[in-house]
Amino acid sequence: MAVTAKIAPSMLSSDFSNLASEAERMLNCGADWLHMDVMNGHFVPNLTIGAPVIESLRKHTKAYLDCHLMVTNPLDYVEPMGKAGASGFTFHVEVSKDNWQELVLRIKSKGMRPGVALKPGTPIEEVYPLLRKLRSIFEVEGENPVEMVLVLTVEPGFGGQKFMPEMMDKVRTLRKKYPSLDIEVDGGLGPSTIGAAASAGANCIVAGSSVFGAAEPANVISLTRKSVNENRKSS
Amino acid sequence: MAVTAKIAPSMLSSDFSNLASEAERMLNCGADWLHMDVMNGHFVPNLTIGAPVIESLRKHTKAYLDCHLMVTNPLDYVEPMGKAGASGFTFHVEVSKDNWQELVLRIKSKGMRPGVALKPGTPIEEVYPLLRKLRSIFEVEGENPVEMVLVLTVEPGFGGQKFMPEMMDKVRTLRKKYPSLDIEVDGGLGPSTIGAAASAGANCIVAGSSVFGAAEPANVISLTRKSVNENRKSS
Repeated sequence: MAVTAKIAPSMLSSDFSNLASEAERMLNCGADWLHMDVMNGHFVPNLTIGAPVIESLRKHTKAYLDCHLMVTNPLDYVEPMGKAGASGFTFHVEVSKDNWQELVLRIKSKGMRPGVALKPGTPIEEVYPLLRKLRSIFEVEGENPVEMVLVLTVEPGFGGQKFMPEMMDKVRTLRKKYPSLDIEVDGGLGPSTIGAAASAGANCIVAGSSVFGAAEPANVISLTRKSVNENRKSS
Repeated sequence: MAVTAKIAPSMLSSDFSNLASEAERMLNCGADWLHMDVMNGHFVPNLTIGAPVIESLRKHTKAYLDCHLMVTNPLDYVEPMGKAGASGFTFHVEVSKDNWQELVLRIKSKGMRPGVALKPGTPIEEVYPLLRKLRSIFEVEGENPVEMVLVLTVEPGFGGQKFMPEMMDKVRTLRKKYPSLDIEVDGGLGPSTIGAAASAGANCIVAGSSVFGAAEPANVISLTRKSVNENRKSS
């Protein structure tokens, strides 16, 4: 199955005081997902939003809420995020080395889609055992347990940072090994960097400032989608 | 100087996806302050909102943002909260035993009003050294360094909990010792409990569910204010 483009505006760059209308605006501009950055001030030096905010947004939209858990203890967040209505639950490989299996099982049991994220300093090889091991655990069910890998293209914590092109090697390596995996990139994505990410093989694109700061966000979303689709077709 | 009533709806009970309009609604209903619960999922088992949300709300209102920092490392939050536009910065005595002085100095240097909070299990005596010590440090400037003590009347972490009347002893003792101090109560406050809090000496009242869940929030706010004012007058 060919992977499809998913454009996910990062609500961290939206007007947090008008989240419901900001979400609606992005969906009207063609966004596929809404990306929610959950940070606890420990895993990263910023505290953003938690389950109560997701829960409140869920009451206003049926959209796919793509939640990136930048927390030191992701296991503690499965229950509240599931209850709040999160769609995707992406945890960090750096803090989940000992409990991947339990974490993924719990995420799935709450009806969420598990994903695994890597900080810029973490080699791509660190997710292979997870993908391999979980694949063998779940193979009887014929499903890919972790359906998404999020390659961070900036140091996480704050919006508006500069894209790190050297991260594209990770994306390329991963795409070669896993042709049908959702590969997401997050950090500094915009018109000048989307080409590099798409040609390396990324199909889920998180965009913050470049979408929310644009005069015509719909154009940025549409150009981003076009770039992903062209690269996916030609690959 | 007589202390005055400050009614502070807790935005934790509002519709977080429409924070700007919820804030405006509460101010139109007569709220004096807006109470913001910052929780980091470590000091309490919930992650709510951080500086980016305060910063966003500040763009929509000039209101006094009464921020309660339920975090393990309050010192790290002074800079971002000050920059975000917080008005009050209330830290917990339980996690600040070693750096009260530095914390208060920094809070004041960022133009915020320092407050100190106690969990239900913490005896009121624990804030006395802080109030005494800081008073002597700042006396040359003729100001009361910590202008508010927040007595929690539920275990912090989640909204909608039951008021603990036994906490009123703390409020009474504190009011006797510090007639001009702002004493705030938070947790389970509403029409059935405000009388107890006001007669014990509390003048800053945080109200969540009882205000946001009311058919007429303005009435609840006005009755709460009346209860505080009557008790302050007769004391």
